[in-house]
Amino acid sequence: MSANSRNNYQAQMLKKKNNIDLETIGEFGLIRLLTEKIKLKHKSSVLGVGDDAAILDMDGKKTVVTTDLLTEGIHFDLVYTPLKHLGYKAVVVNLSDVYSMNAKPTQILVSVAFSAKFTTEMIMELYEGIHLACDIYNVDLIGGDTSSSMTGLTINITAIGTVDEDGIIYRSGAKANDLICVSGDLGGAYMGMQLLEREKKIFTRDSEIQPDLSGYDYVLERQLKPEARKDIIDLLAKNRIKPTSMIDISDGLSSEVLHLCDASDTGCKIFAEKIPIAEETRKAAEEMNLEPVTISINGGEDYELLFTTSTRNFDRLSAVPGISVIGHMTDKSEGKYLIIPDGSSTEISSMGWNSLKR
Amino acid sequence: MSANSRNNYQAQMLKKKNNIDLETIGEFGLIRLLTEKIKLKHKSSVLGVGDDAAILDMDGKKTVVTTDLLTEGIHFDLVYTPLKHLGYKAVVVNLSDVYSMNAKPTQILVSVAFSAKFTTEMIMELYEGIHLACDIYNVDLIGGDTSSSMTGLTINITAIGTVDEDGIIYRSGAKANDLICVSGDLGGAYMGMQLLEREKKIFTRDSEIQPDLSGYDYVLERQLKPEARKDIIDLLAKNRIKPTSMIDISDGLSSEVLHLCDASDTGCKIFAEKIPIAEETRKAAEEMNLEPVTISINGGEDYELLFTTSTRNFDRLSAVPGISVIGHMTDKSEGKYLIIPDGSSTEISSMGWNSLKR
Repeated sequence: MSANSRNNYQAQMLKKKNNIDLETIGEFGLIRLLTEKIKLKHKSSVLGVGDDAAILDMDGKKTVVTTDLLTEGIHFDLVYTPLKHLGYKAVVVNLSDVYSMNAKPTQILVSVAFSAKFTTEMIMELYEGIHLACDIYNVDLIGGDTSSSMTGLTINITAIGTVDEDGIIYRSGAKANDLICVSGDLGGAYMGMQLLEREKKIFTRDSEIQPDLSGYDYVLERQLKPEARKDIIDLLAKNRIKPTSMIDISDGLSSEVLHLCDASDTGCKIFAEKIPIAEETRKAAEEMNLEPVTISINGGEDYELLFTTSTRNFDRLSAVPGISVIGHMTDKSEGKYLIIPDGSSTEISSMGWNSLKR
Repeated sequence: MSANSRNNYQAQMLKKKNNIDLETIGEFGLIRLLTEKIKLKHKSSVLGVGDDAAILDMDGKKTVVTTDLLTEGIHFDLVYTPLKHLGYKAVVVNLSDVYSMNAKPTQILVSVAFSAKFTTEMIMELYEGIHLACDIYNVDLIGGDTSSSMTGLTINITAIGTVDEDGIIYRSGAKANDLICVSGDLGGAYMGMQLLEREKKIFTRDSEIQPDLSGYDYVLERQLKPEARKDIIDLLAKNRIKPTSMIDISDGLSSEVLHLCDASDTGCKIFAEKIPIAEETRKAAEEMNLEPVTISINGGEDYELLFTTSTRNFDRLSAVPGISVIGHMTDKSEGKYLIIPDGSSTEISSMGWNSLKR
């Protein structure tokens, strides 16, 4: 989807004639529309949508479960978020939590509440993205709930996955001196949102001006259509690199590294110049007078994996593309610090990025 | 909680000083407050709150999973719903879905989004009800999500349970001639809501008039603090009565019996005079010029169990207190009918009670 069609998308959806009347088809008709194409892919999915609960059979493997609630106006803005992308992203952020336990996602349950401004077609568009993510990540949609809300759209997804007992990676396994590693690059999703917010303001002031988002494809995609790093989990296994602790970056690097330190009872040293930042992110940040390093540390929603591993794995790590070593764990007494290229250091602190802003 | 204190509750909560500042404690501080008292009760709860996902070990049993999303203004009205009761009910409605598969609930995940009008104390009050339900129903709270919303309160709960493979009861197992049975009595929760809505209207017109809800304890409790019928599941097992199909009554008897018929490919005959209605429900309905039978058929939220079982179990059923035989399944070609005492009959139809009203 091009930047331009992305921006006209919502307007089109609102103009589009409501061909399927929700009052006529009712809740059960809607559920049928949203779930009729589902084909269960996993042997462990014994029963999907259609009874009071879904049934799973995990064959003695450990089961991981995680859940995330997204609300309109806080976690997403429908002025610039296509519903299909939103559905895709809502699934991905949950799968990311499953991967960060080193587990493989197998099933999801999706709850959606929406107000009268949403047509059946819009909800189906949202589910198109949900189904697409299920196909790409090989996950079964096995249940959920659809209902009304007074205002806006709310999506809750619960993801389930499996992992061999000795494969689980907790937040709590890091030791002093372990290398701190991150996949991909950081700050892109944050810059994507800044750009979308800027264009929204311009558009709100003068609706004649069409937003110009050309040339920003990378950061926009990081914000609107993030991916969970299934590939990194596979690559680590293939290269026999076992993380000692792992978490996905949803709230921002600073917040996540503090979680690892707290759970593992360690300190940390992160080297600012080692943090991977894409050229496009750096360029967008500088244009908007923002400091790229600050953004890469505090910007959320990149859904990259942050993990620690023994220094013994340093050589093996360099064989894996897309992983950067950005620092190391320390003894707890040494504190948690970001080291700036000039040699000075700043204590890392964070309270969670955007989840309770008011 | 008396009717009067119930009505003053919300006002008190709003007046109460906000002692714990959410901006200061942040999301992670709030999560700590809400989860610090949790002690995991089940061996299958390997890991609870605190990592990216919870971990379960179901020991080869079948796992059932269900989820429900409740939004303010649609599923509950905080003018007359104490937050503790709301938390309790939000858990119960999910456990009810687990029981209706003949499974035992073992874990829940709770997601909550709330706007700036909610204080930390109010959210803790909500969680008090959630924790109470967990204690009473022997369930572990193992994860969730807390975040902001633009307006109002949204709660999503995912419940997990276990069942032996041959113990699962689907909606689809009923045969023609099977008896149709229901636990407890119906229509009470609906009358409770009608009363609360009536008093809210009076109170809204003139806030000097204190709502008079005395004498309506039974129907108010049915609405504000429903229970899931764990006891019925136990009694059926003890009396070796195996249902052929089962569902819980959340949307109303008519809607649920249609689900059983559709899934089982049968018709049904329900006898109006056999539907159990409490004296208090009948009294409240007549006072408000409503037809008790209509309410018992279409009123939702009673969370009783509706099940079918072989006619061979007729004698055994009479040994179980609190179960009424209200009709029987028929061949699909005979349709789905409610039989009125004068011998006339009405076709049963329903589109779900309150889930997509606009």
